[in-house]
Amino acid sequence: MKIVCSKQNLLNGLNIVSKAIPTNTTMSILECILIQAGNGKIKLTANDMDLGIETIAEGKIEIAGTVAIEARMLIDSVRKMPDDADICIESDKNFNVSISCGKIILNINGKSGDDFTYLPNIDKADPISISTMTFKDVIRQTIFSIGNSDINKIMSGVDVIIKNDQMRITTLDGHRISIRKVQLKNIYSEQEIIIPGKTLSEISKIIPSDAEKEIDMYMSDAHVLFEFDNTIVVSRLIEGNYINVDKMMSSAYETKISINKKALYDCIDRSMLFSKEGNKKPIVIEVKDDVLELKVNSPLGSLDEEIDITKQGKDIVIGFNPKFILDALRVIDEEEVDMYMVNPRSPLYIKDENEKYVYMILPINLS
Amino acid sequence: MKIVCSKQNLLNGLNIVSKAIPTNTTMSILECILIQAGNGKIKLTANDMDLGIETIAEGKIEIAGTVAIEARMLIDSVRKMPDDADICIESDKNFNVSISCGKIILNINGKSGDDFTYLPNIDKADPISISTMTFKDVIRQTIFSIGNSDINKIMSGVDVIIKNDQMRITTLDGHRISIRKVQLKNIYSEQEIIIPGKTLSEISKIIPSDAEKEIDMYMSDAHVLFEFDNTIVVSRLIEGNYINVDKMMSSAYETKISINKKALYDCIDRSMLFSKEGNKKPIVIEVKDDVLELKVNSPLGSLDEEIDITKQGKDIVIGFNPKFILDALRVIDEEEVDMYMVNPRSPLYIKDENEKYVYMILPINLS
Repeated sequence: MKIVCSKQNLLNGLNIVSKAIPTNTTMSILECILIQAGNGKIKLTANDMDLGIETIAEGKIEIAGTVAIEARMLIDSVRKMPDDADICIESDKNFNVSISCGKIILNINGKSGDDFTYLPNIDKADPISISTMTFKDVIRQTIFSIGNSDINKIMSGVDVIIKNDQMRITTLDGHRISIRKVQLKNIYSEQEIIIPGKTLSEISKIIPSDAEKEIDMYMSDAHVLFEFDNTIVVSRLIEGNYINVDKMMSSAYETKISINKKALYDCIDRSMLFSKEGNKKPIVIEVKDDVLELKVNSPLGSLDEEIDITKQGKDIVIGFNPKFILDALRVIDEEEVDMYMVNPRSPLYIKDENEKYVYMILPINLS
Repeated sequence: MKIVCSKQNLLNGLNIVSKAIPTNTTMSILECILIQAGNGKIKLTANDMDLGIETIAEGKIEIAGTVAIEARMLIDSVRKMPDDADICIESDKNFNVSISCGKIILNINGKSGDDFTYLPNIDKADPISISTMTFKDVIRQTIFSIGNSDINKIMSGVDVIIKNDQMRITTLDGHRISIRKVQLKNIYSEQEIIIPGKTLSEISKIIPSDAEKEIDMYMSDAHVLFEFDNTIVVSRLIEGNYINVDKMMSSAYETKISINKKALYDCIDRSMLFSKEGNKKPIVIEVKDDVLELKVNSPLGSLDEEIDITKQGKDIVIGFNPKFILDALRVIDEEEVDMYMVNPRSPLYIKDENEKYVYMILPINLS
């Protein structure tokens, strides 16, 4: 095999597929990026069995062929070549690889692609299309509340429900639920899948933040395939039924407040000065007429702040893990947020009027 | 005590003095910043006994007084206050401290300043003045080759010799020596001090990079005092005699080459692809007519590169720890460097014609 690509094109492609290289594995072939040059295309692939990524690098094929090269060494070798130069990658029949640029020649060992696990074939019919920017946003706005896969496999996934012209994304970790709804351009039949959190967090790193570009999503029973630009991402799905979130949702409330998001965020952030790791104190929120009072009292110091609010309903005193509230506020773009409470033992809902977003957070018992 | 400062002024001052807060100490007073408000000045001080820093924060004194506050908590509290606001720090007679900004009040515990170690008094006569930018540069260009203080206290210091209108800065770690000479504006009597490396590395973080500004240096038998803007840094000196570096220097050579610095740097940097930690291979440099050849051969891969040079004298094959060469090249500003060698067992000198800089590096025995 012999190919020539610009350093920039090659490095872009390698960085994209490297997201599917596992950090810890005993199978050395999984640490490799497969280069396939043929049919006028230079295809780069990495696959850790759960997540596989394939992309096309622009370049010239001088001799068609296939070789697998350890990802870290390949990427570092290309990265350390002169900028704005053309890089040649060549392998002989024993898979000795040379990476060269002018007079610079690096020789490393490659492998045949025989042991490489290719991406599964997914039937590409009826894609669900969404702007890459929206998709990236919605991942960021929900992924922080997925659970630990060691404790509960289902909770480590992101539940995606397509229904009519809406996509609903849900994550939960046993203490809180995050839900985002996205408007789609077309009407689809109802489908539900659970995508591993890791898949979506890696995808969000490689999709462009571009409102004009679209990402296409195809589902099969066991896999989901994403396609954008010249890149395909295939992920295994999490098997099983997701927790029935609708059952846990309630629109009844005793107290509703509207509050400036930044004021609340900054105040809770300050309150965390007085709670060190291992000494996690809940923050206590006291809702009175027109004012929310936040108090912390710890051996490290104390804080007592008031923030102006608009209130409907009863006064309430309720405690929370401050981190959970910060996590939700951080991903809400609106300046003003509405918060709904029932009693000190029932969940808090931070949501907008149309429930485009719903963040449910369980309180901490103060007594 | 009661003072009011803008957040920006206060935070700048606190960040400057925080460089003298030790990371590990059992003496809690050393973790404190002392605030002294009086005589129209708000003075901030931190002192870890080896290094002490004092600066003036612009602000208004409403009640004169003194209080010591744990540095981390004080800085974080101020940092989490609203930007562009005035911050009030107030302490009562029991050293209960409140840090406030409008309706926001944080209460933390302070201490009396009674246990605080004040900066030693240094006689401020006959300062040595140098532009802050030059001083910052010269620290960066030498500090990387100081030795480990656990092995040799003297080597962990930076040797500074003032003679006539020249300042010579030297560091060494047993494998290499770095020397920089700086032209001073005035003539001084000969003086030599050994400043702890830590002192200079902290100073270089807080002095402005400004060719117009000057830093003044005052020496006593046991201390050195630096003064710039509204800040004073006092450091204990390292006792003893520095290694006689002049004895080790030689201007005799058998081989002299001139080489493009970036070409050599990039080539050595690439060669390190094939040497992992714990498997440190020397790089082998082969100087021939008009060309320097660099070869690495390891189980990870191999490299063989040639760089054009101008050569005087004999051919030579010599081995080095690649990191030492990279460290020296990184801090040389010139595009072209001259390298002088005698034989494969004698040191390499990278130096300019006037010996404004000299980097001596011991070779690694290849046989």
